Amino acid sequence: MNFADKLIEQIKKKNTPICVGLDPRLELIPDFIKDRCVKEFGKTPEAAARAILEFNTSIIDAVADLVPVIKPQSAYFEMYGYHGWRTLEETIQYAHRKGLLVILDAKRNDIGSTAEAYSAASIGTVDLFGDGRPSLNADAVTVTPYLGSDGVKPFMEDCKKYSKGIFILVKTSNASSADIQDLPVQIPNSRFQIPMYEHLAHLVAEWSSMLIGSSGYSPVGVVIGATFPREAAALRKIMPQSIFLVPGYGAQGGTTQDVLHCFNSDGLGALINSSRNIIYAYQMHQKPPESFTEEARVAVKLMANSLKKTLKA
Amino acid sequence: MNFADKLIEQIKKKNTPICVGLDPRLELIPDFIKDRCVKEFGKTPEAAARAILEFNTSIIDAVADLVPVIKPQSAYFEMYGYHGWRTLEETIQYAHRKGLLVILDAKRNDIGSTAEAYSAASIGTVDLFGDGRPSLNADAVTVTPYLGSDGVKPFMEDCKKYSKGIFILVKTSNASSADIQDLPVQIPNSRFQIPMYEHLAHLVAEWSSMLIGSSGYSPVGVVIGATFPREAAALRKIMPQSIFLVPGYGAQGGTTQDVLHCFNSDGLGALINSSRNIIYAYQMHQKPPESFTEEARVAVKLMANSLKKTLKA
Repeated sequence: MNFADKLIEQIKKKNTPICVGLDPRLELIPDFIKDRCVKEFGKTPEAAARAILEFNTSIIDAVADLVPVIKPQSAYFEMYGYHGWRTLEETIQYAHRKGLLVILDAKRNDIGSTAEAYSAASIGTVDLFGDGRPSLNADAVTVTPYLGSDGVKPFMEDCKKYSKGIFILVKTSNASSADIQDLPVQIPNSRFQIPMYEHLAHLVAEWSSMLIGSSGYSPVGVVIGATFPREAAALRKIMPQSIFLVPGYGAQGGTTQDVLHCFNSDGLGALINSSRNIIYAYQMHQKPPESFTEEARVAVKLMANSLKKTLKA
Repeated sequence: MNFADKLIEQIKKKNTPICVGLDPRLELIPDFIKDRCVKEFGKTPEAAARAILEFNTSIIDAVADLVPVIKPQSAYFEMYGYHGWRTLEETIQYAHRKGLLVILDAKRNDIGSTAEAYSAASIGTVDLFGDGRPSLNADAVTVTPYLGSDGVKPFMEDCKKYSKGIFILVKTSNASSADIQDLPVQIPNSRFQIPMYEHLAHLVAEWSSMLIGSSGYSPVGVVIGATFPREAAALRKIMPQSIFLVPGYGAQGGTTQDVLHCFNSDGLGALINSSRNIIYAYQMHQKPPESFTEEARVAVKLMANSLKKTLKA
């Protein structure tokens, strides 16, 4: 079973394509958690990292039976130095123990042996004096393609070797994604111009076709922002075998109607991410901080229902 | 003094534009260092991280009086989990104590609050329960621009606030950089087509012009591969105020003649990186492992002389 097969199986089992984004921002974590950690460790990076770990494991407990996958965002862990990185490791381990798949949102990119090192650190194994051992051991990692195939192929090697996945940034959810991704590019040996993101989609279709699993999907997926439904529809046709990881739902303005275009006609092929609207639901609905896990559950269930209705119609 | 001013000052003081790349690959670190660490910590990530720290600090001791700046590559630290991250922190601190500037080669990229988090983690300050404190505290960080200005501006804020710098990937040294970076793009409202990397260079010129220091240079620099001298010459004209961080010299095939085009007529404006040829010089010249620091010094001096001669001619 490749990563896509495992992911599709979990999406079917949990009966929803929701990915819960873990963007643990210290200022949004309930005070009762932070106070306990500051009391024990002072106002230190260690206290911050402990508060984030407690927050994450509580969210994971709350959603583990409802969703197939979580997506921790590396930046929020790196902020707190090696204590933060340790919390990232422990968050991934905890999610695995609870039966969740984990996509590390790290947008890594480099070439040759450095791309190999990033892949080893996130989804592969690292050399320990002759022995190979997983490091973060995420199930998949997001990858930025600006360096071309040299920057993607080393990750694909580990996808194949360890049944892992990647999600390549193609069309991101932000307004200024147009700066580069929307530029009309001239296709070599032709009269045609297409937007950069479409050109990249054709490259991804080629890469992803090298690793198709029994589900018909490839572990080489893509990131497509929920905020660009028209573009998503075109991209869905170019890359039928890639799973779309779709950020920008909810807080950034993407609706269930918008993300519809990211699915294939089999009702599969997309993973809809929501971060703030789930993990900080208690704040958005002005509920007491103590209820943050219950509110996260409610938010997941509402989102799942909304997606189900729209996909059925 | 902004970051560019500090960097130019150090380049003048050390009388060379060499950047020593720290890509600490465990399999290339001398056995006598590794054996000691394995003896104390077993075949563990901690032993690997300790060996890397000892290797790095020895290299820093060897080159600190010769060069203005070092460039640790994040991937090789992340491989060893939180122990590796701790070594990254300690390497940066050690380099600072030895009077070196530090460019973190991390190729980070994201949008909005996540870009802010990456910037905070690398060059800015992080929130610790109301207090701000630097985290990695690098002097500059490399940034990938695929997400457009939303992904660059948050880093620029910290450049301004904390006198730090960024180096934006424009034209990288690898062969497949052509996949995306060389594509001919249509310029809006014009009949002209230019390569993607030139389009990006015009964006960078706009961004960099917002933060010019007393040296005439901007803390918004760029990464331009040594392997593309023709492109470098064109890019030097488009971005006169940006410092070029130039990888690909030596091991990847770039020569002193090639990198010449990265300098301005004032003999400044470029930082030439060499990693493997310096830090693993002992292996390349089949010298005993115990001589790795002396061989690194020799390699730096040879490179400095070669650059000096070519720049004079």
